[in-house]
Amino acid sequence: MSNAELEQLRNRLDEINSELLKLISERATVVQDIGAVKEKQGVPKFDPEREKKMLDKLVEENKGPFTESTIRTLFKQIFKASLDLQSTEHKKNLLVSRKTRKEDTLILLPQDVVVGGNASLMVAGPCSVESEQQTRTVAAALAKAGIKVMRGGAFKPRTSPYDFQGLGMDGLRILREAADEYGLLTISEIVDPAHIEPSLDYVDIIQIGARNMQNFELLKAAGEVNKPVLLKRGLAATMEEFLHAAEYILSRGNTQVMLIERGIRTYEKWTRNTLDISAVPILKQESHLPVLVDVTHSTGRKDILVPCAKAALAAGADGIMVEVHPDPATALSDAAQQLNIDEFNTFFNDVKASGLFRE
Amino acid sequence: MSNAELEQLRNRLDEINSELLKLISERATVVQDIGAVKEKQGVPKFDPEREKKMLDKLVEENKGPFTESTIRTLFKQIFKASLDLQSTEHKKNLLVSRKTRKEDTLILLPQDVVVGGNASLMVAGPCSVESEQQTRTVAAALAKAGIKVMRGGAFKPRTSPYDFQGLGMDGLRILREAADEYGLLTISEIVDPAHIEPSLDYVDIIQIGARNMQNFELLKAAGEVNKPVLLKRGLAATMEEFLHAAEYILSRGNTQVMLIERGIRTYEKWTRNTLDISAVPILKQESHLPVLVDVTHSTGRKDILVPCAKAALAAGADGIMVEVHPDPATALSDAAQQLNIDEFNTFFNDVKASGLFRE
Amino acid sequence: MSNAELEQLRNRLDEINSELLKLISERATVVQDIGAVKEKQGVPKFDPEREKKMLDKLVEENKGPFTESTIRTLFKQIFKASLDLQSTEHKKNLLVSRKTRKEDTLILLPQDVVVGGNASLMVAGPCSVESEQQTRTVAAALAKAGIKVMRGGAFKPRTSPYDFQGLGMDGLRILREAADEYGLLTISEIVDPAHIEPSLDYVDIIQIGARNMQNFELLKAAGEVNKPVLLKRGLAATMEEFLHAAEYILSRGNTQVMLIERGIRTYEKWTRNTLDISAVPILKQESHLPVLVDVTHSTGRKDILVPCAKAALAAGADGIMVEVHPDPATALSDAAQQLNIDEFNTFFNDVKASGLFRE
Amino acid sequence: MSNAELEQLRNRLDEINSELLKLISERATVVQDIGAVKEKQGVPKFDPEREKKMLDKLVEENKGPFTESTIRTLFKQIFKASLDLQSTEHKKNLLVSRKTRKEDTLILLPQDVVVGGNASLMVAGPCSVESEQQTRTVAAALAKAGIKVMRGGAFKPRTSPYDFQGLGMDGLRILREAADEYGLLTISEIVDPAHIEPSLDYVDIIQIGARNMQNFELLKAAGEVNKPVLLKRGLAATMEEFLHAAEYILSRGNTQVMLIERGIRTYEKWTRNTLDISAVPILKQESHLPVLVDVTHSTGRKDILVPCAKAALAAGADGIMVEVHPDPATALSDAAQQLNIDEFNTFFNDVKASGLFRE
Repeated sequence: MSNAELEQLRNRLDEINSELLKLISERATVVQDIGAVKEKQGVPKFDPEREKKMLDKLVEENKGPFTESTIRTLFKQIFKASLDLQSTEHKKNLLVSRKTRKEDTLILLPQDVVVGGNASLMVAGPCSVESEQQTRTVAAALAKAGIKVMRGGAFKPRTSPYDFQGLGMDGLRILREAADEYGLLTISEIVDPAHIEPSLDYVDIIQIGARNMQNFELLKAAGEVNKPVLLKRGLAATMEEFLHAAEYILSRGNTQVMLIERGIRTYEKWTRNTLDISAVPILKQESHLPVLVDVTHSTGRKDILVPCAKAALAAGADGIMVEVHPDPATALSDAAQQLNIDEFNTFFNDVKASGLFRE
Repeated sequence: MSNAELEQLRNRLDEINSELLKLISERATVVQDIGAVKEKQGVPKFDPEREKKMLDKLVEENKGPFTESTIRTLFKQIFKASLDLQSTEHKKNLLVSRKTRKEDTLILLPQDVVVGGNASLMVAGPCSVESEQQTRTVAAALAKAGIKVMRGGAFKPRTSPYDFQGLGMDGLRILREAADEYGLLTISEIVDPAHIEPSLDYVDIIQIGARNMQNFELLKAAGEVNKPVLLKRGLAATMEEFLHAAEYILSRGNTQVMLIERGIRTYEKWTRNTLDISAVPILKQESHLPVLVDVTHSTGRKDILVPCAKAALAAGADGIMVEVHPDPATALSDAAQQLNIDEFNTFFNDVKASGLFRE
Repeated sequence: MSNAELEQLRNRLDEINSELLKLISERATVVQDIGAVKEKQGVPKFDPEREKKMLDKLVEENKGPFTESTIRTLFKQIFKASLDLQSTEHKKNLLVSRKTRKEDTLILLPQDVVVGGNASLMVAGPCSVESEQQTRTVAAALAKAGIKVMRGGAFKPRTSPYDFQGLGMDGLRILREAADEYGLLTISEIVDPAHIEPSLDYVDIIQIGARNMQNFELLKAAGEVNKPVLLKRGLAATMEEFLHAAEYILSRGNTQVMLIERGIRTYEKWTRNTLDISAVPILKQESHLPVLVDVTHSTGRKDILVPCAKAALAAGADGIMVEVHPDPATALSDAAQQLNIDEFNTFFNDVKASGLFRE
Repeated sequence: MSNAELEQLRNRLDEINSELLKLISERATVVQDIGAVKEKQGVPKFDPEREKKMLDKLVEENKGPFTESTIRTLFKQIFKASLDLQSTEHKKNLLVSRKTRKEDTLILLPQDVVVGGNASLMVAGPCSVESEQQTRTVAAALAKAGIKVMRGGAFKPRTSPYDFQGLGMDGLRILREAADEYGLLTISEIVDPAHIEPSLDYVDIIQIGARNMQNFELLKAAGEVNKPVLLKRGLAATMEEFLHAAEYILSRGNTQVMLIERGIRTYEKWTRNTLDISAVPILKQESHLPVLVDVTHSTGRKDILVPCAKAALAAGADGIMVEVHPDPATALSDAAQQLNIDEFNTFFNDVKASGLFRE
């Protein structure tokens, strides 16, 4: 008997579901009509006072079995869905989202270098630009190894105000000259909204660092120029926050954005950060933007760079970033974790030998 | 005219809201009825296959303006609310829950010591029982200071198999004898289900350590004896997991359980763990069980024990646990963080002087 | 016999220690002399090439038992100590450090309000300044409750670019006017270095938010004005990074800095963040700056604000920050976690009734 | 002239460096001799009291230019290096360490299955053994796909005491019978030391789960039998703790141990845990034991299993574990994250197609 009973109850459930659907859909249409009227009147569509009154009324009418708080939560979600319907396309679907744009975004750099397409990218260079000599030595080595894009920090965000803060605009100039001499492209971190504009002559890619991932003024400034941006994930940022940070740039008009995973902060002490490898396929799924992995900062250990770079590529990363210095022991920053030139050549050859680096 | 129009649209919205409320409430009742039938049949209440079919049907029926994904999300939330109504009852019915039992549980120990009532409890003693001499020295000092319950580890779960593992049953005997000599009660950690029974003569409170918080066989064994249990929060356990671990003990019949916050694992390096002070009021709210704070393990630093103990009491903790050793520098475990006897006296006096320790 | 042997070995150890001390001290003097010569020559004191050669030579000479890597590490530390001796007083002792300044820093605000002295501070106000009406309502209520400093966000750093971003300079003006009307002081977050200067007329305290704790350009700009600064701990910042961020401000000349703990990011889900209560006594020990606790953001739950505020004060905090809104349900940001005015009055009375809030 | 002066000062610096090296090396030898005496006497090697006295004496003798605190820091490091020399030997001597055993440990299973050698291992099967039918269906599918080892939980450690706890010994029997029918080997989790012995007839590999990684009594029991063990990394265990947990097993005589990374607990919410990919190469470097990766639990998402498995293999993992269920939607545990049989076949084919799975 109870099976028949179950069947009956289930049928009633199906009926209720259908009725709910009809009502919710009608509700959405009414809200759209209200929105149209408000638009004509020039009043904001969201009226929190009115929403509060509707919720209060529902709670008053509620006879159970749901608690007041469940009723509030459920109806807030229904209200929100109706309201969202009215928002711009932007709001409904983030510009960074794969739902907005199905095809992979390709970043088109000078010299026909493309990021996010069929070829993997290897970005290498010193943590900091320290001198013309040092930068030129690295540039020569990188060019010889077949590298296309050289990194080098000119503005260094350092934990202590007494640590080496970089050479500033001078550093950018040195980087540019060394890169030009050896036919390389440049990438360098910018930390102040006011420096974005002046940096444009010197960098081919603007880097926004982990500590500045939610420096929204800087993101907005980067969104207003016509120059590719490499955005680093914050030290303890969720993937959702990371994508929203990128959205700040895209929403201002600059769609040439690359994401880079650089390790997240956890309790583990044997690595500097924890390389969140799952972020690579998830970001590629959620977004159409290219995804790179910074193996140097995520691990902080030179002895596992090769397996980590291979893992990143196997997981679908479009490129790798690694730090190289002619003489790491004397480096003014990140001395312990930079590869010297020989080590870099070995590293790059090992990564290529795996067949995972698409050339 | 448009204001009249607006008024009309709003009235229709109010009607729809009321109809939605009625349907959602009826739906909940039907789901409850189905649940009752299922319970009789012994089948699980959540049927993902059925849910999937209902969602598919709704999507099929959907004529807009909501997208398929919005419909799925909204209805999933409605389904979940109905289901939660039953699991809230389940949660409401957790034995550890304040909803099941409104009044605070009082732990009744020998010598009329009560935990969870009007008086604060200070548990003190060495990390490990190392010798009769050491244990007796601490016992004498504690008794003199007015302490009622002495801790001392006999079975020590240590990271390395080569570290001091405790004196085992011998340690329990030494602890008991020293305690009896000075009129103290005893608490000691048990790590093997097979040791619960034999330990009953020696301990007045069974401690279950952080590493064993989800050693469910041990929890079950502790649930089957008639002896108060102090359950430590796991190294990285959520409060929800902590309460469920306590539920394992209560569900076997032993309701004399105390919870103890002992710091959680985070990235911060200046403390051994991070004392999660918010856990104190939340656990007191969610559960009727007494809540203590282990200031030694949560901080790992002797220099902040007084402010942390005061904070714990101010947040509503029923007691404090602290490690004391006659000569910490020579201790076989946790050398750096144990107080010596003078330091303990100063600590205890400072805590009492704050007026937060209820005597 | 072995005790005599032990005695002999220990005596030799003492001799070696003394000889090492002499040599290390002489070494430091020689390095200072070299530094003096270099200063005359205008060459940088740190010569990484020379350091590398010295290390290579030592490794070459090393006959064990230390490994090459231990020798490098030990001598790098000895070299670094000598070099540090030459650095400025700044470098040796951070300006934020209790070692540099023994007495507590007092923050002197208008209307004779002092932070860090004998009285506790309660900062309250809405998450965002939304309208003149809303701000004035809160201001009136706060003034009536005896509050001196009102918070209110005008520039809101929001995860999504499509969320309410604050009223900007308009918001600052509204905040100032409402505060002036009710005799309150103001605090508001500034997010762009370029806004520091223009904000000075509107705020009595510049707030630097958690997401900008390592926005070093902003810190530098705040260091160059004569206005108290409230610096929030980053979402996942260590205490060491927090103090160094404050040092950026002090190193530019502005010593009127307050620190505020606002919870750190952990795995726990029942609170928005984890209030790191141990940070309060540690920061007070390490630094002479006042330390506050933001109970709203650290917990994200209205139901535990009282015990958490009491815990913060018991742990030694100089003040508390809490969010208050005339109608939280309609707030444009942080709707769920703001107190309404009645709730705030109850909260403040409960905190005062504990006797932990020093008036 | 000042260059000659500089030259002279530098020569003196070189002399001092050499003398320091000699003294520090002699010091290390003396400390080793003291250690040898202490070992004979059975006293702990580290004597904090003695260290304190030595530091106090040095501070007393110190005439500058170093501050007291620098002297303490420098000498503590020198002391620590000497002491580490003994514990490095201790660490060097861990049985799990690559320093103790250079060659990879091979796990020899029946039917000539070898783990840790030239072939990659794919372990698959349901989260829980639920019925003969379900187990046999999976077994048939796995055998057809070429899988050698089937997993299936009989004792399930569940957060709540009211969740399905597994079929116990009955489950082990069902697993064994299904495996035998299709020529598969079995692996299943054991949670009580008392069950190790009875399980030996049913499992070819004993699994020790994440929650029990520091259930030292269980580790010891597993160390005393002659059966391969798969040890899961704890929810928030460091790699160091993980290796020490394995050492508990090896130290009791059982050297057939495999390590498995299964994700660590972090703040990120888009994955169930964070797959710590760097752990793979580090564990392989530090230890000679085989290292596997559980892609199901580390991610908790079916949509990224292929890239994560490829990343694990690219990083050097010896094998992969994945959950498969004939009808995941109705599974009694982990419903959302198990693959159905078709999905598993696609998964396995994709992984093999990458060329990273060595057959």
